[in-house]
Amino acid sequence: MRTQVGIIGAGPAGLLLSHLLHLRGISSVVLEKRSRDHVERRVRAGVLEQGTVDTLVEAGVGERLLREGLPHNGIELRYGGAGHRIPFEKLVPGRRITVYGQQEVVKDLIAARLAAGGDVRFEIEDVALHGLETEQPYLTFGGERLDCDVVAGCDGFHGVSRPSIPEGVLSVYEREYPFAWLGILARVAPSSEELIYTRTERGFALHSMRTPEVSRFYLQVPAGARVEEWPDQRIWAELKARLESVPGFTLATGEIMEKAVTPMRAFVAEPMQYGRLYLAGDAAHIVPPTGAKGLNLAVADVRVLTGALAAYFEHGSAGSLDGYSRACLTRVWRAQHFSWWMTTLLHTFEDDDAYARRLQLSYLDYVTSSEAAATTLAENYVGMP
Amino acid sequence: MRTQVGIIGAGPAGLLLSHLLHLRGISSVVLEKRSRDHVERRVRAGVLEQGTVDTLVEAGVGERLLREGLPHNGIELRYGGAGHRIPFEKLVPGRRITVYGQQEVVKDLIAARLAAGGDVRFEIEDVALHGLETEQPYLTFGGERLDCDVVAGCDGFHGVSRPSIPEGVLSVYEREYPFAWLGILARVAPSSEELIYTRTERGFALHSMRTPEVSRFYLQVPAGARVEEWPDQRIWAELKARLESVPGFTLATGEIMEKAVTPMRAFVAEPMQYGRLYLAGDAAHIVPPTGAKGLNLAVADVRVLTGALAAYFEHGSAGSLDGYSRACLTRVWRAQHFSWWMTTLLHTFEDDDAYARRLQLSYLDYVTSSEAAATTLAENYVGMP
Repeated sequence: MRTQVGIIGAGPAGLLLSHLLHLRGISSVVLEKRSRDHVERRVRAGVLEQGTVDTLVEAGVGERLLREGLPHNGIELRYGGAGHRIPFEKLVPGRRITVYGQQEVVKDLIAARLAAGGDVRFEIEDVALHGLETEQPYLTFGGERLDCDVVAGCDGFHGVSRPSIPEGVLSVYEREYPFAWLGILARVAPSSEELIYTRTERGFALHSMRTPEVSRFYLQVPAGARVEEWPDQRIWAELKARLESVPGFTLATGEIMEKAVTPMRAFVAEPMQYGRLYLAGDAAHIVPPTGAKGLNLAVADVRVLTGALAAYFEHGSAGSLDGYSRACLTRVWRAQHFSWWMTTLLHTFEDDDAYARRLQLSYLDYVTSSEAAATTLAENYVGMP
Repeated sequence: MRTQVGIIGAGPAGLLLSHLLHLRGISSVVLEKRSRDHVERRVRAGVLEQGTVDTLVEAGVGERLLREGLPHNGIELRYGGAGHRIPFEKLVPGRRITVYGQQEVVKDLIAARLAAGGDVRFEIEDVALHGLETEQPYLTFGGERLDCDVVAGCDGFHGVSRPSIPEGVLSVYEREYPFAWLGILARVAPSSEELIYTRTERGFALHSMRTPEVSRFYLQVPAGARVEEWPDQRIWAELKARLESVPGFTLATGEIMEKAVTPMRAFVAEPMQYGRLYLAGDAAHIVPPTGAKGLNLAVADVRVLTGALAAYFEHGSAGSLDGYSRACLTRVWRAQHFSWWMTTLLHTFEDDDAYARRLQLSYLDYVTSSEAAATTLAENYVGMP
């Protein structure tokens, strides 16, 4: 079996890459470990940057996104008993974010790939990468062999692609935070039209949403916390204690449909390529979820990789492929920094002394009162150009 | 002996307060521990915010400052082999900084006080504060007694004023940095027209100046470093190694006239008042020198205190005096935060791992490429309104 680009992973990165390559007339095969049902239901991020929306719409897979996605022109920062809106329409005119679940993007992309006769294979559990240093790399799985010109590793942080690069090639940068996020999906209308990022002495909380009928919430919990420690009642009590910290705000509650603990960590592997293997998205880098950058970075990687692959297959020019990692990493580190910045601005750190806590509150006062400081938040949140 | 305001300390805060009160017809006596010669030669900060310059000029003590001070419309951030200018004229139009040594401000203020017949006493070593909880506080020294309505503690971090407040009254916030600044004054023309804040893997360095013939330099050194460890030759070699990190830049050297190690620490005591005692400047708060905020904060405190004292003595209204600390602390914490921000952005921290170092470089890239981020630096540096 032969294709031009062997893609490992049918998350947003792999599927979007396959779709964009198809539009350029480049063939690919997508190999995914999990079932289609699993990837279509996997609840992940839900905040799309303007550039991500533009990419999906231009690629012809934005029809449902435009219909069902919820555009937002601001977020609220809540602390010290008051809420402060960061108005995107004023600070970064013409740019906004759209709330649309990652699994919805995945559904749209799978539908598009299948409608176009694309080759997306699910439940392929034993993919192995070979000949990455050669011009004829190939993948093996279930007794089959897929020859290709290029391999794209889009199989996430725990995937097989990155570990297939020989030891000593990659420089790795990482950071573990001493807390995690407990995320829930609840069948209840959002209690606010916009996202609310809340800093309290009890810890951080985020009020978000997925649809007009489904809300999404996150609670800062200690690292290593388990879902079993958080019965529904405790979750609602804690969400109320943190989010009802401004007068007149009441949190509506409802059935909790999903509950999960997300560790908070950051990771970057450099370079994002080795021989004929190119990593995109979580396979190369992860960020804590505070700045909502994970999915958006994956889409940005795929945009760059598509352009480089098109130049290679259409004109035989390898320069852009050679420069792929370098072209991605400026954005990757900007997002790393922004995610760290949002995380440290809004979470409580047990090791922080009284001085550090006052600095944090002073920083929040500054971000919510200086137009320049608010703009640094807004321009990163909607996505740097 | 009687006066309206007993002022402890003849640094910029105490002297300026005495002068501004005099302009409002309010009497004061200034008691200073050191000799006049000592305070006039004490080398300290040298970067005046626009608001500080305005205050001195409006008070009639800015004549020499306007003549000899060096106005600056930007600073350079140097790292990664390149320099990046932060252009104040573009980012914060109409606001700039002026380089003029703190001891020059002190000389001008002493001259103005003495010319107006002001009572400034030097070498008063044994001041004690009494009756701060009463309406008749008084100071004793050398067998004398000074009765006053109000006491102003302007005697710096190590002065007697703050420790005269009973234990348990003040909340104290502090931070020690794991490094210090070795500062020198050299008889050599500045090698650049503007200040250069340099981040290198060897540590931070600052190129500054005092006059067209005198340069000022700072080197990040380990906490606890001693001047004896730094012979002139070693200082110049290290300054060259850090500052000559961009092509084409050569550091001019000259006679080193002064050498001192400044510890890097931050401190805030709240509230800045107790009974009839009001603290201003370093007596209440200190910042690491990176953001050049110490002297400017002292002047801001004195502006607020003058207004409150005028309201009290002219109309018997104590409301502003009661609110003095609250009125100052927002600016104090903004400056604390900015000083921390500049310090962490530009210094090397031994405990930093590779991830933290990359975040720092990414932040520098952002500050030097985003107009919003550069504006946050510029507006704090020239002084928030």
